[in-house]
Amino acid sequence: MLSTIGGLGEFALITRVTSQFPRTDDVILGPGDDAAVVAAPDGRTVATTDLLVEGRHFRRDWSSARDVGHRAVAQNYADVAAMGARPTGLLIGFAAPPELPVAWAEEFTAGVRDECALAGGAVVGGDTVGSRTLTIAVTALGDLEGRAPVRRDGARPGDVVAYTGHLGLSAAGLALLERGLDGPALCLSEHRRPSPPYVAGPEAARLGATAMLDVSDGLAQDLGHVCRASGVSVRLEAEALRPEPELLEAVRVLGAPTGKAVDAARRLMVGGGEDHALAAVFPPEVVLPEHWHRVGTVGETPETGTRSTVTVDGNAVEHGGWDHFRRD
Amino acid sequence: MLSTIGGLGEFALITRVTSQFPRTDDVILGPGDDAAVVAAPDGRTVATTDLLVEGRHFRRDWSSARDVGHRAVAQNYADVAAMGARPTGLLIGFAAPPELPVAWAEEFTAGVRDECALAGGAVVGGDTVGSRTLTIAVTALGDLEGRAPVRRDGARPGDVVAYTGHLGLSAAGLALLERGLDGPALCLSEHRRPSPPYVAGPEAARLGATAMLDVSDGLAQDLGHVCRASGVSVRLEAEALRPEPELLEAVRVLGAPTGKAVDAARRLMVGGGEDHALAAVFPPEVVLPEHWHRVGTVGETPETGTRSTVTVDGNAVEHGGWDHFRRD
Repeated sequence: MLSTIGGLGEFALITRVTSQFPRTDDVILGPGDDAAVVAAPDGRTVATTDLLVEGRHFRRDWSSARDVGHRAVAQNYADVAAMGARPTGLLIGFAAPPELPVAWAEEFTAGVRDECALAGGAVVGGDTVGSRTLTIAVTALGDLEGRAPVRRDGARPGDVVAYTGHLGLSAAGLALLERGLDGPALCLSEHRRPSPPYVAGPEAARLGATAMLDVSDGLAQDLGHVCRASGVSVRLEAEALRPEPELLEAVRVLGAPTGKAVDAARRLMVGGGEDHALAAVFPPEVVLPEHWHRVGTVGETPETGTRSTVTVDGNAVEHGGWDHFRRD
Repeated sequence: MLSTIGGLGEFALITRVTSQFPRTDDVILGPGDDAAVVAAPDGRTVATTDLLVEGRHFRRDWSSARDVGHRAVAQNYADVAAMGARPTGLLIGFAAPPELPVAWAEEFTAGVRDECALAGGAVVGGDTVGSRTLTIAVTALGDLEGRAPVRRDGARPGDVVAYTGHLGLSAAGLALLERGLDGPALCLSEHRRPSPPYVAGPEAARLGATAMLDVSDGLAQDLGHVCRASGVSVRLEAEALRPEPELLEAVRVLGAPTGKAVDAARRLMVGGGEDHALAAVFPPEVVLPEHWHRVGTVGETPETGTRSTVTVDGNAVEHGGWDHFRRD
């Protein structure tokens, strides 16, 4: 009976879970009161929220509880990093059926704890409730360290477009899982547990990035937001989109014909979501560290009536998009 | 087709919804980027999160979408007020089935907007996803205006216990709804749309409250948290628990025998949850404004082995409690 969260009970679960979370210097008051108090040293707080729903955003047979914990934190702190901010605090809402094994909740907690250790933020609060649908709501807070937030509307024609992190691996991993394939391992692990380049967010801000975002829906679609917000176009260069070897291997395993693997991999780099890379736009004179990959330039606004503002070698990219209410 | 959120689509829904939310001076960067930026004038942010799940926390046949919007905001900003803080920003995660009517989402949004106007905070961000179970995740942020947070662990023997807001009306309202009764109206409306006394939170902090919390699970159970955190007991006085006339009327409608109505009403005041009154503990010399109702005093820690730390006229209060994973 104690092996399910319904048997253990809400308060025992909360006690067991919150004891796992270390405090950091940003935690003025941690879990256990009506609300937490988190440091906001420069008088501002960055805040973002995301929901993960079982069956939509993760599957318990494809991802371990620990993977889901990692991912819940990663996708939120990636948004914090994309503003140029440092992660400080995290709040987690946990809605679960009573029959959920306690072991699942504990492994999830371990994943949250370990990803927080990687990102540098602390769990400061949360809520646990019963629900038919396992749902995880995460809110992440961050500190801009005195800098201006890097928004989506600052890109200017002539700027350089670059990314850091992985591109296409998560989408390849999902395709592999859908076909019951178990490699290349890096694609599967990046799908289950993405690894956003957290420190590159504040780094890009210090380097003078004019726009930045977290690549969650796919590079082309997300850069489309920068285009609309900044009133510009983005010209990606196919040659500059260099697939990682594991991505090339994945498209071969997935059946890309010989001679077409690089093209197929590039399509995943441009269209695949959920890698949580950071894409940023920099003034042309900025010298980028090696882990930032230059992939294109910013151009003028396209003529009125032209829908596609992101091109690869001049060709429009289909914005496949991902509508969360679409049935598929 | 456009009458459901699945037909309208995620991005159109977000656009339609976010256009409803006015900005306040606390909003440095509102919805539309990877994350929002909210003012934290004294270098700290109060943060709290709550989940509302259909069927557990609200029923669409008992509460309008507008009621649910009001309640989602109210229960979170009540937690902010309970720390002695002023509401600043709100983030909303909205997980909904595609067949949810757009009208429901719009009415919900209107409720959120109107309660934010009452509480003084702004909606700064959110997330919308598909789910079989309609689930609303709210994170509220607040500003301590330079004061120390009012925690649960500061109560001292000799202090006075007081509350402000309603007590028992929400529980009475729920009981009325369960029996298909339609009055007294105030009980029904407080159940559907509680009205936390937001400004009384900062007020109590300024008056020197040594402990404070939002009454969400019932006065006795919530004061039990103060007892455990502060190492004290709380002695409520029945005579001081004065039921509002609508609560007395409700217990009569619910069948309390003549001569027992006041007792029954007091039981609801002590045990009923979800009113989101504020309960606070003050040093005895503090002169309380009239809307704070003195209901008891703080005593020494009970002897070891005694479980009940909250008494009414010396009698132990059964902590009925509310376990969110319990099936009932």
